[in-house]
Amino acid sequence: MPDHAATPRAQLFSVGSELLRGEVVDTNAAELAAGMARLGLELTGTRHLPDDRAVIARAFAAARSDAALVVATGGLGPTHDDLTREGLADALGEALAPDPSLTERLYERFGGPGRMPESNLRQALRIPSAEPLENPIGSAPGWWVDRDGCVSVLMPGVPSEMRRMWSEQVVPRLEARFALRPLHVRSVKLFGIGESAVAERVGDLLTAPGPSIEAGIYAKDDGVHLRFGTREDPARLDVPVERAIAALGEWAWGTDDDSLPGVALATLARAGVRTLATVESATDGALLAILAGHAPGEGEARFVGGRLVVPDAPGGAQPPRTPGADAILDVRLDEPGALGRSRVTVALAASDAAVGFELRQVRIHGSGPQRRRRAAYAALNEVRRTGTEL
Amino acid sequence: MPDHAATPRAQLFSVGSELLRGEVVDTNAAELAAGMARLGLELTGTRHLPDDRAVIARAFAAARSDAALVVATGGLGPTHDDLTREGLADALGEALAPDPSLTERLYERFGGPGRMPESNLRQALRIPSAEPLENPIGSAPGWWVDRDGCVSVLMPGVPSEMRRMWSEQVVPRLEARFALRPLHVRSVKLFGIGESAVAERVGDLLTAPGPSIEAGIYAKDDGVHLRFGTREDPARLDVPVERAIAALGEWAWGTDDDSLPGVALATLARAGVRTLATVESATDGALLAILAGHAPGEGEARFVGGRLVVPDAPGGAQPPRTPGADAILDVRLDEPGALGRSRVTVALAASDAAVGFELRQVRIHGSGPQRRRRAAYAALNEVRRTGTEL
Repeated sequence: MPDHAATPRAQLFSVGSELLRGEVVDTNAAELAAGMARLGLELTGTRHLPDDRAVIARAFAAARSDAALVVATGGLGPTHDDLTREGLADALGEALAPDPSLTERLYERFGGPGRMPESNLRQALRIPSAEPLENPIGSAPGWWVDRDGCVSVLMPGVPSEMRRMWSEQVVPRLEARFALRPLHVRSVKLFGIGESAVAERVGDLLTAPGPSIEAGIYAKDDGVHLRFGTREDPARLDVPVERAIAALGEWAWGTDDDSLPGVALATLARAGVRTLATVESATDGALLAILAGHAPGEGEARFVGGRLVVPDAPGGAQPPRTPGADAILDVRLDEPGALGRSRVTVALAASDAAVGFELRQVRIHGSGPQRRRRAAYAALNEVRRTGTEL
Repeated sequence: MPDHAATPRAQLFSVGSELLRGEVVDTNAAELAAGMARLGLELTGTRHLPDDRAVIARAFAAARSDAALVVATGGLGPTHDDLTREGLADALGEALAPDPSLTERLYERFGGPGRMPESNLRQALRIPSAEPLENPIGSAPGWWVDRDGCVSVLMPGVPSEMRRMWSEQVVPRLEARFALRPLHVRSVKLFGIGESAVAERVGDLLTAPGPSIEAGIYAKDDGVHLRFGTREDPARLDVPVERAIAALGEWAWGTDDDSLPGVALATLARAGVRTLATVESATDGALLAILAGHAPGEGEARFVGGRLVVPDAPGGAQPPRTPGADAILDVRLDEPGALGRSRVTVALAASDAAVGFELRQVRIHGSGPQRRRRAAYAALNEVRRTGTEL
């Protein structure tokens, strides 16, 4: 089978004029794009479309001529500007009609016809070739339309509803419908070095990472990630990963699913620290948000809580340090300086002096919330550096 | 002048295969879309494009035939897969050549030719019709290309660099180049009511908000927002705003630039509270992140710090309450229950009993980080409800 047949081309639409007015950030597109890449679909383009029936219809018609799969989120609500159903119906030349079983389900959801806003009846409309996709946590059912060799999928724009419909209803149908070859990915993660310097040091690893391997380099809040992917045997990714670590070991803090909080907490655990508390200033709580959001792993010190101190708050004398933790990580972020760089002052106080350090200062770049998250990651990287290297 | 001439059509590209693999979330598109709407540009579509020279070139060619402005971010880096310059050059049929003044500036930035990775030289390439846009905090200059009645703008994908180039270099040029009529927007913000119920209660306010007025309804973490916009006299927005408040006053917590933390802190200040501290559990610090990120306003109690308590942490007996604050807001989020709903328990302890309350329980829906932010907003809404209504 030719390679192309095994990697169906997909397009993705996020529908809603609010997206084109910048009133909401579209997180669905990135989430679905990642899911498609893992599955073995090639996403060739993503579009934000306005709540305009004709524009939506034209976009579906154009995408269906090029792609084996068109996925749209949003525009399935009950209000007058939810027009994704209508747009796809027009593109396919089919008429919308109420589906009695969908109407029944809506009535059930609302506890009876009298308790349902009449506008919700629009959510029970479908075209003959649409198979409804159940939405257990919302009122908008999705659609699966397999016609003329192209699959069109409609899902709600509410992220939690989209996520559940995608994993429970859409992914199994895609796996049954297409011959998919999932993408295998490996990454090397670095902190304290920029993209250009990485590209310079790894030679041709980015341009020629090996046969059937694609390489990429990404600047993230937790540093620069080098990523290698293949749809062939995943073992062939070991070579570029080893080459990258050999060239960049000084900055490398992990690979693949490693996270900087996990690596830092594991460093502490190896030094005998069981529990960590944090104090931070001028970071809006970025450090504790990262540590609280980290799923605790085996062989890691446990985060037991953190405190945000607002600098110069009236009556806000700095509260005493948290008792009951083996170690306390203290992070202070200065105002941004020249060239958009900020200074982060990090201290680690621990009963075991082997892992503590008085003060370290590192510089980070960026602005806004990103600047604060980078300060938190810089602190975690300092903790990691107190222990063993990768 | 016809209306259309005063609202130039724009298209927006975010370039980078990492976007199409879902490896990064595109926040630039929403930010630029909001900026364009305010300026008086009509954004008719946003696309994510892969790092593919031919695809980028075709996208520019197609967009330039329909739009007066095409803005692209990303793909201006130094690495082999940064191809936005090449794509636009191909679409315009112009050749790239090094610009000596751009090369000079790059050398300055890196501290000399010997200290600059050679790959960065690509960032000094331009086509004859491109006017360079200075990038004071990054190595990639932008481009402003005004040709054949259409303006094309290239900006870096790094959000901080994009943001500064947009406001300092691009916006002034757009204002000089186009006859723009800015969009005036007013909003009514609600908590504790869903979109369908809002639509039901406001009658035809959403479908017929008034002449030359557009209406929209958005579910946000801080509740449902009703938004009205016009490019005519902004005073005509007062009528739909007043109608919305009359119909929904019970749930309305603010209008326009009001923020829920600001409204809650103002409620506390009116009750004599000068300083607020917080304790929260199972929220990953969402409450303190919101309060720390809030710019302190006149007539508001001041947030002086917060603490995250990890439930059931080993050795993590709950630390004593923060001293030195007039009031302490305590928020506990339970695990999600049936139908994706979570219970939030809120207590407000204050020296002035007039504003305190023992325990209130509210339910929120959503999952993941959104669920935690909604819990924080639900708590702030409870604080607001202790004081005066809108």
